[in-house]
Amino acid sequence: MKAAIIGSTGYGGAELIRIIQNHPHLKLGMLVSTSQEGPIAKIYPHLSHLAASLEGLDLDQLCERNDLIFLATPPGVSREWTPLLAERGKIVIDLSGDFRLDRPEVYQKWYKQEAAPVEWLKRAAYGLSEWYASEIKKAQIISNPGCYPTATLLALLPLLQNKMLDVSSIIIDAKSGVTGAGRSLRQNLLFTEVNENLAPYKVDGHQHIPEIERFASQAAGEEVHVNFIPHLIPMSRGILVTIYAKRVSSSYTTADFLNIYRETYQNAPFVRLQENLWPETKHVRGSNYCDISCHVDERTDRVIVLSVIDNLMKGAAGQAVQNANLRMGWPETAGLEFSPLFP
Amino acid sequence: MKAAIIGSTGYGGAELIRIIQNHPHLKLGMLVSTSQEGPIAKIYPHLSHLAASLEGLDLDQLCERNDLIFLATPPGVSREWTPLLAERGKIVIDLSGDFRLDRPEVYQKWYKQEAAPVEWLKRAAYGLSEWYASEIKKAQIISNPGCYPTATLLALLPLLQNKMLDVSSIIIDAKSGVTGAGRSLRQNLLFTEVNENLAPYKVDGHQHIPEIERFASQAAGEEVHVNFIPHLIPMSRGILVTIYAKRVSSSYTTADFLNIYRETYQNAPFVRLQENLWPETKHVRGSNYCDISCHVDERTDRVIVLSVIDNLMKGAAGQAVQNANLRMGWPETAGLEFSPLFP
Amino acid sequence: MKAAIIGSTGYGGAELIRIIQNHPHLKLGMLVSTSQEGPIAKIYPHLSHLAASLEGLDLDQLCERNDLIFLATPPGVSREWTPLLAERGKIVIDLSGDFRLDRPEVYQKWYKQEAAPVEWLKRAAYGLSEWYASEIKKAQIISNPGCYPTATLLALLPLLQNKMLDVSSIIIDAKSGVTGAGRSLRQNLLFTEVNENLAPYKVDGHQHIPEIERFASQAAGEEVHVNFIPHLIPMSRGILVTIYAKRVSSSYTTADFLNIYRETYQNAPFVRLQENLWPETKHVRGSNYCDISCHVDERTDRVIVLSVIDNLMKGAAGQAVQNANLRMGWPETAGLEFSPLFP
Amino acid sequence: MKAAIIGSTGYGGAELIRIIQNHPHLKLGMLVSTSQEGPIAKIYPHLSHLAASLEGLDLDQLCERNDLIFLATPPGVSREWTPLLAERGKIVIDLSGDFRLDRPEVYQKWYKQEAAPVEWLKRAAYGLSEWYASEIKKAQIISNPGCYPTATLLALLPLLQNKMLDVSSIIIDAKSGVTGAGRSLRQNLLFTEVNENLAPYKVDGHQHIPEIERFASQAAGEEVHVNFIPHLIPMSRGILVTIYAKRVSSSYTTADFLNIYRETYQNAPFVRLQENLWPETKHVRGSNYCDISCHVDERTDRVIVLSVIDNLMKGAAGQAVQNANLRMGWPETAGLEFSPLFP
Repeated sequence: MKAAIIGSTGYGGAELIRIIQNHPHLKLGMLVSTSQEGPIAKIYPHLSHLAASLEGLDLDQLCERNDLIFLATPPGVSREWTPLLAERGKIVIDLSGDFRLDRPEVYQKWYKQEAAPVEWLKRAAYGLSEWYASEIKKAQIISNPGCYPTATLLALLPLLQNKMLDVSSIIIDAKSGVTGAGRSLRQNLLFTEVNENLAPYKVDGHQHIPEIERFASQAAGEEVHVNFIPHLIPMSRGILVTIYAKRVSSSYTTADFLNIYRETYQNAPFVRLQENLWPETKHVRGSNYCDISCHVDERTDRVIVLSVIDNLMKGAAGQAVQNANLRMGWPETAGLEFSPLFP
Repeated sequence: MKAAIIGSTGYGGAELIRIIQNHPHLKLGMLVSTSQEGPIAKIYPHLSHLAASLEGLDLDQLCERNDLIFLATPPGVSREWTPLLAERGKIVIDLSGDFRLDRPEVYQKWYKQEAAPVEWLKRAAYGLSEWYASEIKKAQIISNPGCYPTATLLALLPLLQNKMLDVSSIIIDAKSGVTGAGRSLRQNLLFTEVNENLAPYKVDGHQHIPEIERFASQAAGEEVHVNFIPHLIPMSRGILVTIYAKRVSSSYTTADFLNIYRETYQNAPFVRLQENLWPETKHVRGSNYCDISCHVDERTDRVIVLSVIDNLMKGAAGQAVQNANLRMGWPETAGLEFSPLFP
Repeated sequence: MKAAIIGSTGYGGAELIRIIQNHPHLKLGMLVSTSQEGPIAKIYPHLSHLAASLEGLDLDQLCERNDLIFLATPPGVSREWTPLLAERGKIVIDLSGDFRLDRPEVYQKWYKQEAAPVEWLKRAAYGLSEWYASEIKKAQIISNPGCYPTATLLALLPLLQNKMLDVSSIIIDAKSGVTGAGRSLRQNLLFTEVNENLAPYKVDGHQHIPEIERFASQAAGEEVHVNFIPHLIPMSRGILVTIYAKRVSSSYTTADFLNIYRETYQNAPFVRLQENLWPETKHVRGSNYCDISCHVDERTDRVIVLSVIDNLMKGAAGQAVQNANLRMGWPETAGLEFSPLFP
Repeated sequence: MKAAIIGSTGYGGAELIRIIQNHPHLKLGMLVSTSQEGPIAKIYPHLSHLAASLEGLDLDQLCERNDLIFLATPPGVSREWTPLLAERGKIVIDLSGDFRLDRPEVYQKWYKQEAAPVEWLKRAAYGLSEWYASEIKKAQIISNPGCYPTATLLALLPLLQNKMLDVSSIIIDAKSGVTGAGRSLRQNLLFTEVNENLAPYKVDGHQHIPEIERFASQAAGEEVHVNFIPHLIPMSRGILVTIYAKRVSSSYTTADFLNIYRETYQNAPFVRLQENLWPETKHVRGSNYCDISCHVDERTDRVIVLSVIDNLMKGAAGQAVQNANLRMGWPETAGLEFSPLFP
């Protein structure tokens, strides 16, 4: 099967190329860019061994020559193109935020732009692979989760679903490497500004909050509001979320929480429960793994959950391919079995 | 006046040398090391322009040739030496944790070793310069605060003293550069392990917790327990604490909190209130400044406070010299007026 | 076929595990360590998804349960173990320096320790895959090249063999990431010392010099002596060598040099010639590629050649597997076809 | 005396502010920017403790309110403004490249733009403080050297003046931190691109070559051509040049070369000769020092010289203030006596 990538020149697009190139069931199809042209090696010299070239956005070509379409585009692009592609029968996996919220007014509030038509929003399956596999397996549009929501929800959902947390007490202190901001030219992303620096940002509201709250509320069976503060870390890849929440019963121990995770993820090939150590971003770098651990602080009656992913992999391209595997009926791990790059 | 440094070969000691060398009222006295000898330039080639050499620990020499003694030593050393020096009439500024807790059993629980005699613990002034200046000005022993407690307490105390927070709701997510761990040879401190990595540590309890709780409780007038989770950031210097707490009244706005800070620190030369941007560690690197900002999240009724310092400066050597200035009656900023090194 | 790794806890060993785990024809056999025991996930949490455990060094077990033996050990270990394994009929790929020099006295001079017996030195094929494939294909002992010699010789040999350089004029300014120094606890390898630093080292002689000169001389047909100065770069992986040499004829243009490279490496899947850009280490990070480019400076009559590799891949584990592929008659690229990890 | 800075928003300008703010004889005058306005704290939050604001470029204001003018501007600006300021009697210290070459055609060839009028080029003193102090002391225009030429010439000139090198054999392999490229928005300067990367650049010609050759030739008394290849290092500050050259006599030892440096720089407060260790950039970071060491390789008859500076200090703002000190008759070290920031 041939997979096209719209938005091939961003980091998410480059990561999709890296994965698909070695996938047992997928071949690279069209590499689409609206901003640049020429051989992919000109844009990404690390891909000099590939012969592929960038092409413009052409709906007919896309539909004729490709079976699966990945969109790794800025907000607002997928909203327009996904319906066109879906109407022509293509399976679309959208890595942007355009189809993650089902209520247009919420999208508009947080993304500060027009939402996709509500009927299309309703048709998208949310691509958190470990939780929505049955929807993903039959969806025509798969909305790949945001990087922060992936790390957060994999850690939160088991505890919410099992009613172990006071839902009004959830605080998510999130830390991300710089690829989360893409390849855009902004002064605060220059090496000289990021290196030897640690910077909180969007303290007054990040667009991943409604996405987290939507699925957290669904799992909890009641409305959940969270604090979510992201921080920019001087590294290229990796997300760590440190989650703080009150346990509902002071009889719950660390072991109880670990057991819930163990049960929930016993058949999840990419979630690794860590029991004797705390997760670190480098333990998952370049891979599709999510490492989770937790600790109950008896002094304050809170549980602290730690969850790490590679934001470009499980937080973007890796999970997108995992979803393609689910959708196509291939082994969930196809093309994703490689280990993290350490150190 | 001559200042001796015991523990000259650690990063805190080197930073003291850097400051004292340019201080208008202090001269470098004995540079003491128990582990190494020879010219300081051999240990720290960046100090090649200084002629000073390391000397062994000799009580008589220390007392005869120096007026002020800084201890930048591992836990357990100051406990023994500070009483000896104080009995001989020397003013001691201790950068270790040995005199920060007034109850020996608490010290023993968190530091896993014997505490200093309780009568000596009681005689030490806590050197958080902006809060305990009157005690510092007459103390013979000044116990310099820990790096994390400095960043945390400067942010918390104004709000606790003014009864603006639910004291059961305080969560401190702390992030530190690697110099916080000193110059010791540990595998997890190797460049190859730290670089491109983000690692939580001591999730089950850090020895700075009782120090924070001691002074937070004192300011609040009631017992305070906090969650405090530290993280190792791939940078050399800098601490950021992100503090989350419930406001006691939902009428308190961001402006109200900022006003409290403004009033509290109007005469504090090293606390800079940031109103239109979030503090970043690089804005204070190499300097004695602490930058603070805050934001009220109306959705969750919590205030988020951000506080940054350079852990080796305001978090160690810089505040130690600030305390020396206070104690000697010199201008509080003497020798500390230089700007951060940026970028 | 099963491959054992002796020295599994170093970075080279970990990289071998990463590659072999996904190799189409190899399976992980014994993971040997003399210093540590227990599950590999305890030493390397990034490998938590693997069930493998470390075992002690046992000759019988090694020979019974494994077909191929990789040694990723410090100098002096392979010297003793390689003959024992070879005598039992095992194919040995040695990543250490013990079999790279054919004259024991040269080894002793540069490595400051006893050499392997000369008859064994003579039996080892030098594993620079692109140049010694015919020897490698029939060797029982393959001596995998050093990281610096790999980057250097791939750039130098084509020009020396074609008599294009003044052999007395060769200067190699080499730069390496910190993994080149392994996982050992040394103060100069701490994050705090390496970060924001650039350090030349072994200016008075590095043990890779005789290795470079041995094979450079062989290709040139005359004795070659080079200047070689290595520098430690604040990054984890990657080597760049900047080579300066006089061209023998001032009629040779940049295009002439590029042509020689193009001809030499037309069938070499891992050498990528770069014509319109200068090689950067990140373009090959995590992969087995070597990128080469060059430029003639007419003003000084010198050619400058730039060559980059990932020191743990083409400079160690990657080339070792490439050699295993050659030796076994598998496709040269088996298990090594993945792209660099960027960014 | 009041010092104005034209080009206050670049890193060189910010560094001048940092130094002048603590200078015993200088006060901050006008901070000029043509691109931005408002308080300096808005552009550089690390300077939040300063009340200064940016002003537009106004010749009358500049001349009325300031005694000394520093220009830290891109190429082409100083060419126009320096003559205007000099004609009004102001002392100008130009940190750009506009007055470093005395022949307009050479400037035009390497800078790809029009040169300043030749009569003005002739009036500028070259501000390599240790070598041209007598000219600097009476100059109205001081042309501050480039960062690479500073590190290179301090290492080369003593050996050239003493005829110890074969002038046709000089190779300069130069490495720089990223601040050398300024604060401009370019993709190759993003953190994600620079971090974990090592990149040669301008391999076919860097504009600092004619500056190096001009003063090297002058010292040698004959025309000198050099190879000079710069590399971008993943760090913010620091330059290391590794210089390779043939000694003219094989009787010259390392000690002989060190003696020449010792004699040459015996009264130079900012040049530190290192004899038992190799210079590292971190040893001078944030300071005005230049550390130099060397080694003779008997095998190849070459001397290797290593020289490090902080590119923003001795390579820009620090040396500019050193020149102001010389020009004004103040102690050469005034305002520059602080130690490097380590680590």
